[in-house]
Amino acid sequence: MNAGADLQAIRERKPLVHQITNYVVMNETANATLALGALPVMAHAPQEVEEMASVASALVLNIGTLSEHWVASMLIAGGAANRAGAPIVLDPVGAGATTYRTTTARRLLSELEIAVVRGNSAEIATLAGREAEIRGVEAVGQAAGPELAHAAAEALGCVVAVTGPVDHVSDGERGVAVANGHELLGTVSGTGCMSTAITGCFLAVRAGAPLDAAAEALVAFGVAGEDAALAASGPGTFHAALYDALYNLDPTTLDSRAKVE
Amino acid sequence: MNAGADLQAIRERKPLVHQITNYVVMNETANATLALGALPVMAHAPQEVEEMASVASALVLNIGTLSEHWVASMLIAGGAANRAGAPIVLDPVGAGATTYRTTTARRLLSELEIAVVRGNSAEIATLAGREAEIRGVEAVGQAAGPELAHAAAEALGCVVAVTGPVDHVSDGERGVAVANGHELLGTVSGTGCMSTAITGCFLAVRAGAPLDAAAEALVAFGVAGEDAALAASGPGTFHAALYDALYNLDPTTLDSRAKVE
Amino acid sequence: MNAGADLQAIRERKPLVHQITNYVVMNETANATLALGALPVMAHAPQEVEEMASVASALVLNIGTLSEHWVASMLIAGGAANRAGAPIVLDPVGAGATTYRTTTARRLLSELEIAVVRGNSAEIATLAGREAEIRGVEAVGQAAGPELAHAAAEALGCVVAVTGPVDHVSDGERGVAVANGHELLGTVSGTGCMSTAITGCFLAVRAGAPLDAAAEALVAFGVAGEDAALAASGPGTFHAALYDALYNLDPTTLDSRAKVE
Repeated sequence: MNAGADLQAIRERKPLVHQITNYVVMNETANATLALGALPVMAHAPQEVEEMASVASALVLNIGTLSEHWVASMLIAGGAANRAGAPIVLDPVGAGATTYRTTTARRLLSELEIAVVRGNSAEIATLAGREAEIRGVEAVGQAAGPELAHAAAEALGCVVAVTGPVDHVSDGERGVAVANGHELLGTVSGTGCMSTAITGCFLAVRAGAPLDAAAEALVAFGVAGEDAALAASGPGTFHAALYDALYNLDPTTLDSRAKVE
Repeated sequence: MNAGADLQAIRERKPLVHQITNYVVMNETANATLALGALPVMAHAPQEVEEMASVASALVLNIGTLSEHWVASMLIAGGAANRAGAPIVLDPVGAGATTYRTTTARRLLSELEIAVVRGNSAEIATLAGREAEIRGVEAVGQAAGPELAHAAAEALGCVVAVTGPVDHVSDGERGVAVANGHELLGTVSGTGCMSTAITGCFLAVRAGAPLDAAAEALVAFGVAGEDAALAASGPGTFHAALYDALYNLDPTTLDSRAKVE
Repeated sequence: MNAGADLQAIRERKPLVHQITNYVVMNETANATLALGALPVMAHAPQEVEEMASVASALVLNIGTLSEHWVASMLIAGGAANRAGAPIVLDPVGAGATTYRTTTARRLLSELEIAVVRGNSAEIATLAGREAEIRGVEAVGQAAGPELAHAAAEALGCVVAVTGPVDHVSDGERGVAVANGHELLGTVSGTGCMSTAITGCFLAVRAGAPLDAAAEALVAFGVAGEDAALAASGPGTFHAALYDALYNLDPTTLDSRAKVE
């Protein structure tokens, strides 16, 4: 893992990260991407997603407020990204909460080559074929464990990042646990989606090493959460401070702050 | 009225509040819901709204940026909520400003059983069949009075909350005036929509008492506005501080701070 | 140029500014409009845009996350605004990045009478028929110069504002350079879109003088950016402070702070 060097690479190359994501967090993931140092672009029209995805360095697909036209565009964009060799990260928001979300997440995984899936424990358990309890889009009762990440990575054939108080990333062989972060992250809507967008940024400069990219992204985002909490009086000031913290992340100290095993 | 105890109940039960709302405020109402202590979920696809609404504890319908597909989904979700016994709060954003909004608000009121309508004086006057002046989505010239809330509640057959410098809530028999709040609330887009979402949260734990739920929600939101103003230099810092204030609301002192009659 | 007096007029008249804009920045442009002192309204349904646009004092069209239905509504709304004599400002977000965006921007310019086009150097160069490099929605490599604004204004037959470290506005005859602003504006998603919305606000009170309105808007927004930077530790706190700064802009000192030539 080399989070600092890869953060430095993001800031130098400013990779374009194409995002087809949900209405709730679109501004938030764009701003998180920009604050980290990459370039976000949001585009979902079937007339343009192929063209946009084919020049992007990574593609973020997020089903948080899905509908048929958007899913169709995700498939077109995903195909273009696959042909161009740009890695895709999938956020299966609410998989398990409704049949439509579960089916759509499976469909994207089946029809596209996905590099990383990033979700909470209930979403990942659902996709791994296990029983899971989810209330809306929030996991209930499951602990995110290394075993779940491992089993899901094997089942889905890609890197899986299960986030929670401790994050677990696995490619089905190697596993990494990331303990960075802060409980205020759970009080702001869309921080999970932001961590997926940040994963897209690291994938953009580490397409060949998705396990490392996913773990580095969670380190960077978790450290930013820790920094933001110092300046926060609650979710609102934390939210603003989170962009400051992403922007002010220091590549030279990032690896020393990683709580990884 | 028992705002403190009901706030406590929200934080303990974390009820799921399904919201089909407008693009402008989706992030804002999700964050207000989460900061208060409930769980927001945004879903609008016809393929999933019935399933989502049927497991939610309350449904928020907001026509701020409506279109045909969304209205259709509101009707499906509303039917499911009605069958499940989950209360619905309607925010008729811009009723009176265009025929389409007025007609849609009336249609939702006619086809669904709505527990509470929360709007500004022009929107409510329009729905009560009165002359009203609205510029865009902002009421012009009307004072929100107890008589309007009373008449609208009788006309619409549900609880009506008319918000303004003083809020007036009525079920057609009893009336409550809530004088909490701060003028900076009028400088941030979507604070009305947030108060509707907060009403949904209180309804989720007080489904049987919509008048109380609506009044308590306006007390809680108003007190949060008062707290936020203390930390604000303008609309931007007020907006951030508002989520902090909702998150930090103290159930043990909330009722003593209520300016209610 | 009379930025202070026109800002005063905005605050007194509170003109309604109808915006059909992208999902990413809808909340942000609404809040910027409101903080400045005008009234934003977002409406995109074909059933209502004609009615809404015909009572608005200005119309903002922004193609940042375009799709077919939205483009159709932009044309309906634009026609209504043209008939009502309300000025239109167009933000051709991402023109040059995909064929669909370039074509749509050209179509809006061809079918509607546009008062002002506000874009970055790559977007404007594309519309002026020049070679341009754009990565996603960000200009790469081009300097925004007075010559580009002049040539584009001639080619498009309307006022053109090219924003960058220095902004250049031209009507094809006169040119104005505005050097207000701060580099943190480039770290927040949607600040370009906000400047377009602010242009709509000034157009609403200066419909007959689009060159002045555009330059004044960029002065006001740039000065607000300068003020916001004083209170910021990064993009998040800058973003919040930007609304405070717009709200607290002092009409009596605004012209003296303009860096214009």
